[in-house]
Amino acid sequence: MTETFRPDARTPRGFIDKRAADLRAERRIIEAVSAVYERYGFERLDTGAFEYADALGKFLPDSDRPNEGVFALQDDDEQWMALRYDLTAPLARFSAQFWETLPKPFRRYAFGPVWRNEKPGPGRFREFIQCDADTVGSSRPEADAEMIAMMAEGLEAVGLPQGQAVVKINNRKLLNGLLTTVGVQSEPQRLAVLRAVDKLDRLGADGVRYLLGEGRKDESGAFTPGAKLNAGAAERVLAFLGAGREDRGATLSNLADVIGGSVEGDEGLADLAKIDAALTRMGVDHDRAAFDPSIVRGLEYYTGAVFEAELLLETRDEHGHAVRFGSVGGGGRYDDLVARFTGERQPATGFSFGVSRLAAALRAAGREAASDVRGPVVVIVFDPQAMGEYFAVAAELRAAGIAAEVYLGGSGMKAQMKYADRRLSPAAVILGGDEIAAGTVTIKDLDLGRALAAGITDNRQWREDRPGQATVPRAELVASVRRIVDAVS
Amino acid sequence: MTETFRPDARTPRGFIDKRAADLRAERRIIEAVSAVYERYGFERLDTGAFEYADALGKFLPDSDRPNEGVFALQDDDEQWMALRYDLTAPLARFSAQFWETLPKPFRRYAFGPVWRNEKPGPGRFREFIQCDADTVGSSRPEADAEMIAMMAEGLEAVGLPQGQAVVKINNRKLLNGLLTTVGVQSEPQRLAVLRAVDKLDRLGADGVRYLLGEGRKDESGAFTPGAKLNAGAAERVLAFLGAGREDRGATLSNLADVIGGSVEGDEGLADLAKIDAALTRMGVDHDRAAFDPSIVRGLEYYTGAVFEAELLLETRDEHGHAVRFGSVGGGGRYDDLVARFTGERQPATGFSFGVSRLAAALRAAGREAASDVRGPVVVIVFDPQAMGEYFAVAAELRAAGIAAEVYLGGSGMKAQMKYADRRLSPAAVILGGDEIAAGTVTIKDLDLGRALAAGITDNRQWREDRPGQATVPRAELVASVRRIVDAVS
Repeated sequence: MTETFRPDARTPRGFIDKRAADLRAERRIIEAVSAVYERYGFERLDTGAFEYADALGKFLPDSDRPNEGVFALQDDDEQWMALRYDLTAPLARFSAQFWETLPKPFRRYAFGPVWRNEKPGPGRFREFIQCDADTVGSSRPEADAEMIAMMAEGLEAVGLPQGQAVVKINNRKLLNGLLTTVGVQSEPQRLAVLRAVDKLDRLGADGVRYLLGEGRKDESGAFTPGAKLNAGAAERVLAFLGAGREDRGATLSNLADVIGGSVEGDEGLADLAKIDAALTRMGVDHDRAAFDPSIVRGLEYYTGAVFEAELLLETRDEHGHAVRFGSVGGGGRYDDLVARFTGERQPATGFSFGVSRLAAALRAAGREAASDVRGPVVVIVFDPQAMGEYFAVAAELRAAGIAAEVYLGGSGMKAQMKYADRRLSPAAVILGGDEIAAGTVTIKDLDLGRALAAGITDNRQWREDRPGQATVPRAELVASVRRIVDAVS
Repeated sequence: MTETFRPDARTPRGFIDKRAADLRAERRIIEAVSAVYERYGFERLDTGAFEYADALGKFLPDSDRPNEGVFALQDDDEQWMALRYDLTAPLARFSAQFWETLPKPFRRYAFGPVWRNEKPGPGRFREFIQCDADTVGSSRPEADAEMIAMMAEGLEAVGLPQGQAVVKINNRKLLNGLLTTVGVQSEPQRLAVLRAVDKLDRLGADGVRYLLGEGRKDESGAFTPGAKLNAGAAERVLAFLGAGREDRGATLSNLADVIGGSVEGDEGLADLAKIDAALTRMGVDHDRAAFDPSIVRGLEYYTGAVFEAELLLETRDEHGHAVRFGSVGGGGRYDDLVARFTGERQPATGFSFGVSRLAAALRAAGREAASDVRGPVVVIVFDPQAMGEYFAVAAELRAAGIAAEVYLGGSGMKAQMKYADRRLSPAAVILGGDEIAAGTVTIKDLDLGRALAAGITDNRQWREDRPGQATVPRAELVASVRRIVDAVS
């Protein structure tokens, strides 16, 4: 490098640097849901960041480079590698590669970053953390029920109280069966119906009715062509979407009336009945896991049950309008992913939480612990000649399990106190010549200082039992600091 | 994708899929050292996987693409991005970018994967996990002392008993000062001396003597040119390398005699004296952190103290020969990294552990907990009509904190028992028609079965107080399973 070249220090577009408070929230989520998944018998698996692009299904054999949605590069042996864009594709590759040696069904969970080479924007990142659980090798609907129970339990484990979140469940086979009954035969028409149904939340039944039929013109005058169902068929689809009832059993019998008839629809109903039974025996009731025929989930690869975790809580958007927080994760049954490699169909089911999204949900629900960002106790450097003394104090506090550090910069007292405050330190420890000579130590209660400054507490009221600053015998150092650290101000 | 294209399922070259036991060992290491670093007042930071290639220093401004040692690709705005190859370069970029807004000194720890685009080989991977701690903005030698104390405490926190590992400390200024004294003025000659010194472990003093002088011919006849020191200078360097004594104080006084004279050497000695004092006051003695003048550390960017964590334990290589396990991490003071961006020198010090390397060290030291890989209790599917019952049993066990699952494959009893055994399940729970009718449950002790099979225990001895299989009232399910799960067999 030439002496004069100075690169600009900048975070790459669409990537972020995460600080302690956010990371602690994310780590807590990962630990909580991992504990749930392990209790369900799932074992952790971690594949590498890269997959061969053909294994990701992002490489068309008649093209000379992968799809632009992934970060790809060519290895020195000419093979294209791409960073994983989710955790399911690597699982499919792993399962196909090691199938003979795995205990079957294979139950694994995984967490880690995934990368999408998309246009970055506000809140849209090109790297984010996912946390997944999947079972490969079981066609039993009870395997789906287990995923649903794990989602519900995971949401509670991270701190969302029952009633603030629900897992909504549907089965692709129901709508497929209904569409067969009303005469939909082409795949493009089926997908057009799915797209229309997916807009129910946004457009309501009337909007969807247009999209199921000839098409819909929006306020701007733009026209979206419809699925071209006849009126009777469209009404049956709408009746299906509205078939949810007060509990899973009632929804099931209602669905039987609405769908009735096709082999695939009946299969879907039988699957849902088994899911219902298993959920009930696991103690997961309708409030935590409900049947909702309007749930679609975009991905085309789902072949049976689909489920979505939704936060019920209302929150405010950037304009201050009340909005439903919405989905924090989802999944479903996909029976064709492993077959891409082996040609052999392998039943699988699983789901994914977006970890940052879940962290945002917890913040919105007011479930973030305030103590998260607390800094260490700072031992002030009053006299650089007494450094040894300061290190002994810090070591004593650490040995007692209290985070502590000696200030290591070159600034004076005032800057040191400001540093401690910026670190959100609970306390500062001061040892001047007087204290050292007298065998004492002065402890400044910074938590209290912040509480007073924020108007959370009243100066007079606190002065007696919690002085802002106190000089105590050195032997009482740990106990005095602990009183401040443990206090909830 | 055409119907017939079937990609080969394969792990990319130089990458690995990690299973539960390895991941648990790594996670435990990360949690243990993170707790230590937080107790020292360090806050976690996580930067993204990518950095701009120029920010990594891997992009020569007069070249049109980055150095081949990194995984690099061009973004759609033509900028070259590269996956980080360590955690220090992103910290330097972050510090330069946000310096004005950070509490100073800035103390952060980080862990996560780093990527090196190198030729893969046995045990040589292109992705691995590092765990780092650094302080930016402190020139105090005590900041180095703290790093050394954190390394020593980290090694114990992960489970290496005192005496099995040591942090070895040196200071670049000492050798630099000595070289100035003996008349070395050119940078290439200085680096040649460093390279020679770095081979002390492998070649011994005699080999290094040749490399310090005219050069050395190895057994194959290949000639390595030497640093061209005269004999007197070479002997002074060798005396310096052998200056380590029985404790830090004695080493310091011995070093003063060996080096004496140069300004830089005296500065290095004064720094080491302060490091010694701080370590002593933190309770870190010579057995855990020793001065060793022969420590070099390859990276050219170190400007002062350098330290290396070494496992003292002997282990066997693939040929069965006893070998020192060696280094598991290291670091030092680097005062120029941030200046690359800002032009302003910013003192910094830090160190890095290789997490997989540390896990291997723990395995070599016999410190791996055997319970790590234990699977869930498996509830056997005897009668698919009774699925609900099985899920109730699994939920009951989970609610009691015991990992449990219902077998969800389609195979019979024998395959199910084999599955449970492959998962290393402690127990299998069997509910046939008889048990359900009688309100009982049969529990098979698989831990015991494995212990018997491995000859660890004796059949007769165990039969009385620990039967291989027992039928108990359903109300005693949890207590009976817990007895097996909690037993140490």
